[in-house]
Amino acid sequence: MIDKANNKATKNKITSRSEDYSQWYLDVVNMADLAENAPVRGCMIIKPHGYSIWERIQRVLDDRFKETGVSNVYFPLFIPEKFLNKEKDHVEGFAPEVAVVTHAGGKKLEEPLIVRPTSETIMYDTFGNWIQSYRDLPLLLNQWSNIVRWELRPRLFLRTTEFLWQEGHTVHETEEEGDERARQMLEVYRDIAENIMAIPVFTGVKSESEKFAGALRTYTIEAMMQDGKALQFATSHNLGQNFSKAFDVSFLGRNGEKQYGWQTRWGLSTRAIGGLIMTHSDDSGLVLPPRLAPTQAVITTISQSSDNEEIVEKANEIENMLKKESVRVFVDKRDLRPGEKFYEWERKGVPVRIELGAKDIADNSVVLVRRDNGKKVKVELPDLPKSINLLLEEIQTNLYNRALEYRNAKTKFVDNWEDFVKAIEEGNFVHAHWSGEKEVEAQIKSETKATIRYIPFRQEKEEGRCVKSGKPSLERAVFAKAY
Amino acid sequence: MIDKANNKATKNKITSRSEDYSQWYLDVVNMADLAENAPVRGCMIIKPHGYSIWERIQRVLDDRFKETGVSNVYFPLFIPEKFLNKEKDHVEGFAPEVAVVTHAGGKKLEEPLIVRPTSETIMYDTFGNWIQSYRDLPLLLNQWSNIVRWELRPRLFLRTTEFLWQEGHTVHETEEEGDERARQMLEVYRDIAENIMAIPVFTGVKSESEKFAGALRTYTIEAMMQDGKALQFATSHNLGQNFSKAFDVSFLGRNGEKQYGWQTRWGLSTRAIGGLIMTHSDDSGLVLPPRLAPTQAVITTISQSSDNEEIVEKANEIENMLKKESVRVFVDKRDLRPGEKFYEWERKGVPVRIELGAKDIADNSVVLVRRDNGKKVKVELPDLPKSINLLLEEIQTNLYNRALEYRNAKTKFVDNWEDFVKAIEEGNFVHAHWSGEKEVEAQIKSETKATIRYIPFRQEKEEGRCVKSGKPSLERAVFAKAY
Repeated sequence: MIDKANNKATKNKITSRSEDYSQWYLDVVNMADLAENAPVRGCMIIKPHGYSIWERIQRVLDDRFKETGVSNVYFPLFIPEKFLNKEKDHVEGFAPEVAVVTHAGGKKLEEPLIVRPTSETIMYDTFGNWIQSYRDLPLLLNQWSNIVRWELRPRLFLRTTEFLWQEGHTVHETEEEGDERARQMLEVYRDIAENIMAIPVFTGVKSESEKFAGALRTYTIEAMMQDGKALQFATSHNLGQNFSKAFDVSFLGRNGEKQYGWQTRWGLSTRAIGGLIMTHSDDSGLVLPPRLAPTQAVITTISQSSDNEEIVEKANEIENMLKKESVRVFVDKRDLRPGEKFYEWERKGVPVRIELGAKDIADNSVVLVRRDNGKKVKVELPDLPKSINLLLEEIQTNLYNRALEYRNAKTKFVDNWEDFVKAIEEGNFVHAHWSGEKEVEAQIKSETKATIRYIPFRQEKEEGRCVKSGKPSLERAVFAKAY
Repeated sequence: MIDKANNKATKNKITSRSEDYSQWYLDVVNMADLAENAPVRGCMIIKPHGYSIWERIQRVLDDRFKETGVSNVYFPLFIPEKFLNKEKDHVEGFAPEVAVVTHAGGKKLEEPLIVRPTSETIMYDTFGNWIQSYRDLPLLLNQWSNIVRWELRPRLFLRTTEFLWQEGHTVHETEEEGDERARQMLEVYRDIAENIMAIPVFTGVKSESEKFAGALRTYTIEAMMQDGKALQFATSHNLGQNFSKAFDVSFLGRNGEKQYGWQTRWGLSTRAIGGLIMTHSDDSGLVLPPRLAPTQAVITTISQSSDNEEIVEKANEIENMLKKESVRVFVDKRDLRPGEKFYEWERKGVPVRIELGAKDIADNSVVLVRRDNGKKVKVELPDLPKSINLLLEEIQTNLYNRALEYRNAKTKFVDNWEDFVKAIEEGNFVHAHWSGEKEVEAQIKSETKATIRYIPFRQEKEEGRCVKSGKPSLERAVFAKAY
């Protein structure tokens, strides 16, 4: 038993961001009880607190998808190997990272099965049967599931061999409708990133080298982490007719002739939790934006055993009062030292801590402590429901603004190679002219580790010269190092 | 395209139960658009309507689990082969049906990985690290996930190689607490089966031969299908200390000494949807109980193109009126023949159809059609919200009572072998004395295909003689053929 206890005790301080950013991230994940490495290489165990954040993301996204007419489905985990080979770019992109089932039920399989790295092929094989005529369109589907992509350098949430996600798949009658849907879903992600998760994001198009294997165009949402690196928060792909032609996703058109569907695919994974952590958290641990937080306020009782009963009773009363106002509240009535409780909720990122002791009850008030900046506010008990909702919204806004200010300060426009290299080294999002050539993009990446994160949607045409090749260019791409 | 259309058209009538029960079941699944066979042997594709039923089950169960203090987690899909070997009974039970990943990331793996057939071993390897002292108990966790068990005779929902489920896992300080939790969760399942899904169920204990591989005792919920066969709706296992000793799920007890945890495990899968279908559905298709139904009422507009606009407007008005009363309602405003619409919602099992045409609007009334018995009721529009809620509850009760009457008529008490064989052949639940010997149980199974479904919890001690061996017995077991 001593070994176990020691094992748990070995780490109880969070490394500061300035000291070691990577270690800080892992410490926050560990100390907030979000996840841990599994005994299977590259996989993770998502602990209750981490999973409750994923459940909140699921609920918010799922409701939004359904508002736009999307239904959920479930397709098999296993994909026959021959399916994957049907779309050329797709198989090239995924073949190196798949896990393969070769034996089952005590026998060697005739055809190996791939554990899904994404579900295009298994879904589209069936879609054709579901669509007879243009009247069956649009087909608007989504799937919540686990995904496996063999990962050589795993990191909790950010890159794991198995991860959880949703993948939306739609089929449309026209190219315009397909593109509109791809952009509509990107907008859903943007809205949730910014308005629920308080993460300011950029939207744009991926370059040809960075787009999804098999897509016509990949739209992306990019967020800036606290080390200036980019994190791809979600993507939405306009697949064009690449897959519909390979898998015969066809239908009888209005003109009475066979036509191929226009398809989209859009996804967000548990990786977004990594982005959430790295956007808001500080050297004391996790910081959760109130609109997303599974628990928005925790009532911590501060009691001697003599007055414990009265305080717990009052805490329950306040809990009920707040629940009526739709505040997600939890009462921590454990018999622990107050400091111990405070510290736990701080590192778990709960937006507001409500301290309640004998003195507070005598005053008919409570002390609210903000997680985002540590400030304390004393509130009269009758004002609490109103005050706390205002405070939660204030915290939400503050977190967003803080992240936005940071990002603004770390966004640079450069026009020559020297400035480009310096800006990338210092961890910025760098807007620079690029000649549009794949080779130049690759060269920039190999020299600076920066990739094109996105090409902004709306930019004025601007004549310039590629920072690397010196060739003429009409628009800027945004470069950064990325997770 | 003609092939596709033909393919869809080949089957548009449901075989009657009396003609061919097995085909009836598959026809209902197909015609209600619930699921279909996947191109991967033994796996299924759950279609939007089928998945929406699973989502309702998930929501209802998940809320109930959380009310009892349970949190959700996520453990890896892959289990190192050596883990499975740690608990002797467990590996014997599952080894023959696992799928094995031998290659990944382009290489042969040093140790093969098992695709989880259940998660005891991967979870319990970690639980020991999470529990330091009795203060960390009880540990109350649940996981929603996909499971793979190689299936040689697959049938949609009832037996599939991959299925969806939840598995709850708890650790307790004492044997009593563990047993209490196992029974508490059984009670949650019973309540949801009976009060939400309108399925009357029996609860009891499994015999030693039928219990879960590695459990001390398996508690079960058994439902009777419309062919008199039993379906195991859910199980809850008291694992005792079998796994905690194999995986060192230990903690520092109140006495300062190392102790092993007392564990439980309880689960319900997409198989329950098979049970739901076979309890209520009829020769016209699926029948859904209102409290579970994703859509409780569908408003079907009956219009000529001339009056279409007015009718759709009225339908939307009624939709909003019902949504305010928390009725899950959908408007079918498609430009199809009324009969076509009626037929679709009938086979999809929506509890109430609301017919709305020009004449109804003139009368300021609507016609409600019950799915359970086809009866029509004319309702004045202002009375609709109240009437529909009463009607939905009436349907719920009627479905439960109908299933209960059927089950009562097909439950027999027998005291000799001849009667036993006859009662089993006629598709009954048969209460019979059994000497408690494994060999006799096996003999009964091989001669009649009947297994012991459960040994009832509360029964008066009753002296009798085993129907097969003639040896003395103090209680009855319940035998039936089963899915």
